[in-house]
Amino acid sequence: MSKGKKFVEAITSMDEDFAQWYTDIVKKAELVDYSSVKGCMIIRPYGYAIWENIQKNLDEKLKATGHENVYMPMFIPESLLQKEKDHVEGFAPEVAWVTHGGSEPLAERLCVRPTSETLFCEHYAKIVQSYNDLPKLYNQWCSVVRWEKTTRPFLRTTEFLWQEGHTIHATPEEAEKETVDILNLYADLCERVLAIPVVKGRKTDKEKFAGAVATYTIESLMHDGKALQNGTSHNFGDNFAKAFGIQYSDKTGKQQYVHETSWGVTTRLIGAIIMVHGDNSGLVLPPKIAPTQVIIVPIAQHKEGVLDKASELKDRISKVARVKLDASDKMPGWKFNEYEMKGVPLRVEMGPKDIENNQAVLVRRDTREKLIVSLEEIENKITEILDLMQVELLEKARNSAEEKTYSATDLDKFIEIANTKPGFIKAMWCGDRACEDKLKEVAGVTSRCMPFAQENLSDKCICCGKEASKLVYWGKAY
Amino acid sequence: MSKGKKFVEAITSMDEDFAQWYTDIVKKAELVDYSSVKGCMIIRPYGYAIWENIQKNLDEKLKATGHENVYMPMFIPESLLQKEKDHVEGFAPEVAWVTHGGSEPLAERLCVRPTSETLFCEHYAKIVQSYNDLPKLYNQWCSVVRWEKTTRPFLRTTEFLWQEGHTIHATPEEAEKETVDILNLYADLCERVLAIPVVKGRKTDKEKFAGAVATYTIESLMHDGKALQNGTSHNFGDNFAKAFGIQYSDKTGKQQYVHETSWGVTTRLIGAIIMVHGDNSGLVLPPKIAPTQVIIVPIAQHKEGVLDKASELKDRISKVARVKLDASDKMPGWKFNEYEMKGVPLRVEMGPKDIENNQAVLVRRDTREKLIVSLEEIENKITEILDLMQVELLEKARNSAEEKTYSATDLDKFIEIANTKPGFIKAMWCGDRACEDKLKEVAGVTSRCMPFAQENLSDKCICCGKEASKLVYWGKAY
Repeated sequence: MSKGKKFVEAITSMDEDFAQWYTDIVKKAELVDYSSVKGCMIIRPYGYAIWENIQKNLDEKLKATGHENVYMPMFIPESLLQKEKDHVEGFAPEVAWVTHGGSEPLAERLCVRPTSETLFCEHYAKIVQSYNDLPKLYNQWCSVVRWEKTTRPFLRTTEFLWQEGHTIHATPEEAEKETVDILNLYADLCERVLAIPVVKGRKTDKEKFAGAVATYTIESLMHDGKALQNGTSHNFGDNFAKAFGIQYSDKTGKQQYVHETSWGVTTRLIGAIIMVHGDNSGLVLPPKIAPTQVIIVPIAQHKEGVLDKASELKDRISKVARVKLDASDKMPGWKFNEYEMKGVPLRVEMGPKDIENNQAVLVRRDTREKLIVSLEEIENKITEILDLMQVELLEKARNSAEEKTYSATDLDKFIEIANTKPGFIKAMWCGDRACEDKLKEVAGVTSRCMPFAQENLSDKCICCGKEASKLVYWGKAY
Repeated sequence: MSKGKKFVEAITSMDEDFAQWYTDIVKKAELVDYSSVKGCMIIRPYGYAIWENIQKNLDEKLKATGHENVYMPMFIPESLLQKEKDHVEGFAPEVAWVTHGGSEPLAERLCVRPTSETLFCEHYAKIVQSYNDLPKLYNQWCSVVRWEKTTRPFLRTTEFLWQEGHTIHATPEEAEKETVDILNLYADLCERVLAIPVVKGRKTDKEKFAGAVATYTIESLMHDGKALQNGTSHNFGDNFAKAFGIQYSDKTGKQQYVHETSWGVTTRLIGAIIMVHGDNSGLVLPPKIAPTQVIIVPIAQHKEGVLDKASELKDRISKVARVKLDASDKMPGWKFNEYEMKGVPLRVEMGPKDIENNQAVLVRRDTREKLIVSLEEIENKITEILDLMQVELLEKARNSAEEKTYSATDLDKFIEIANTKPGFIKAMWCGDRACEDKLKEVAGVTSRCMPFAQENLSDKCICCGKEASKLVYWGKAY
């Protein structure tokens, strides 16, 4: 690599200032721009193309499992939002209120949806009559608004893009199965597509969603050891069904309440990709979601035949990967830096000497490994490297997360780790909210989840010393 | 056809009450439902699947012509909306205003985007420096809000889904070419995919978009002879560039204003499909956008082997078409009616006798034509029929539109046609706004467009008798 030849302005080192490193990447990789609307972001073409790849992948998975897309209004009347008590308490303080249409004041205020449970419930109450109508497995791709005080692109913004699934079922068992199935589907998306390892588990009552009986979550560690909640799946039981009167007649003709779930992932996943895979040269994108998987940079492109050969090569590679050729008149070194910043998984260099030798040079974004490859086998090699890179990025991230995962069986040790070693701390918990509050107070951590994969580190709660009921992952979170 | 065997409630006849016929279809084909938010609609799975097919088709066309998707905030600060004079005058009376975030009043009101020119302009002004940065060909899929007094599903709703393209170019010629290229792309979408014939043309100054130099449009006739504007493409010249200071340095280093376009199509296209192809049994969907292209209805399905054979058939057909098998315990006659209501292009019936004879019965939704087909050749036959149906639906719609297109060379005749024959009236015009206003007054029609395909019906304006400059299509519009 061309050290000292930085043609694009360097970014802040992540060890020096992780937050600034993040901000530099989102700007310089051209993922987002700021707008004059406080807390809202502009998702630029490169950032949006990543989102489209995530969408495409997840949408296919959802459709293959019987889910259907719909579109609900973006407005919710104030009276409708208030129907489920816990829900309105959770969301009312952070919604945007529409009070005027044109020059007329509205008879009733409308909030811009922070989430759409209430609208789905109202609709389900109208369209469901009998057990024949169940289940309903609806999903919506849209944007939602939550009035945030401090915002960061992708991680926390006033408006963000997401999908929200809302399903209703005849029995509690079916609803519970759906909630967990979706969590597994999300975990699969993160691990296999985004190469981000996750811990699957259940939220404590303190951390669960407003109105839910149970919230499941996938949690990941970022480079800096802080946790990120990548997606959640909620089982509402019949809470909303009762508040909205969603009933069906069962096979005996008796009226029953439905059992409901909701679940979502957001553009925050792009933030996770940045903070799990990125390095001091910029973004590193897993091949499966990279808008451009291979960039061809011609060397000495003014020499006869170079651009023709590069163009031929592009046509060939386009059969196996998303490829671009940069034939602009910028210097190769400048191009190297630019596509490293943008995290393009594989660079192909080809100059007069390579052409003479019927070869090209491949450079991996993550390892910087260089490989000279005969043009005879270049398609196969590229497929092979992209597949390998996808696997190795996950492995590397998994190792990094394991290194940052600690265990504690006494409180002093717990606090020491919390203060000195950013990451997850595994520790036993009695189940009391008071202990959760205290750990937040003395160690600055929150419960991230009660993992599905339980272990018994000790019989005692790390905080109060009483009998422990659960292993919990604790950490500082975005 | 099973006349007198209507298992689903019949819809109003279109000849009796066209508006009610339309409303019946959108409800009974389960395209939309009403919500408690006035003027907003819920797009149900079947309606949304049609929109997704339209999106997929158009999005591919846009990407293939170099356009990139982005996402802009849904809010526009009041001061930003006011930057271009004509634009704010056109939209301010019909926007929804957000005045509070949580419990706090906002320092400046935000409108929910009615369209996003102002946001794109602000962004372009920041990211464009030199001629190397041009053109920018951005597109956005989103929902927008315009406070409407009277609404109808798909045709006019307070919130609707659309795509909005916003492009900037170095020269007026390039901007004009883009504006017309996109109109042609929209016309192609309508004709080849939706089987809806269009008249391409330019809007008069009275009818053009707020802030545009020129607006181009594609106009179609519905069953009832009223016109529908299916999509528009606007050339803004440098109006917005000057209001927002979007400049670039040209090859000589001189600062120049960019030239801008914008263009959009909306969920209104679904309304057009209903009103162009539908009949008194319900929806008729062109195969290219039908969520289900082929429905298999087993006959006497309780008899041994019928459902197995039907399922085998489904697997085979799924290789060539989007197919579903309805194995529910409803009566076949009920199923026939249901899938006719939903406009599924082709029905396959298969019972014990068909199985014995190694055949199935195919029934076309549009013509009701029945065809007995050997199972040997069923995939080929289905492909053939779907292709043919796509072409014939366009032909039929074109004939219907031609029959409803009249010409007039004197005002009495013009008024007589306007009062008695719903459709387009072709007539010459001098170019004066006063004549346009008068024709509206005396005949109740508006200028739909000045078609690209000009003819000279007469040398005189239909209204004032002075020298004519343009042929205009006039009509009553949705």
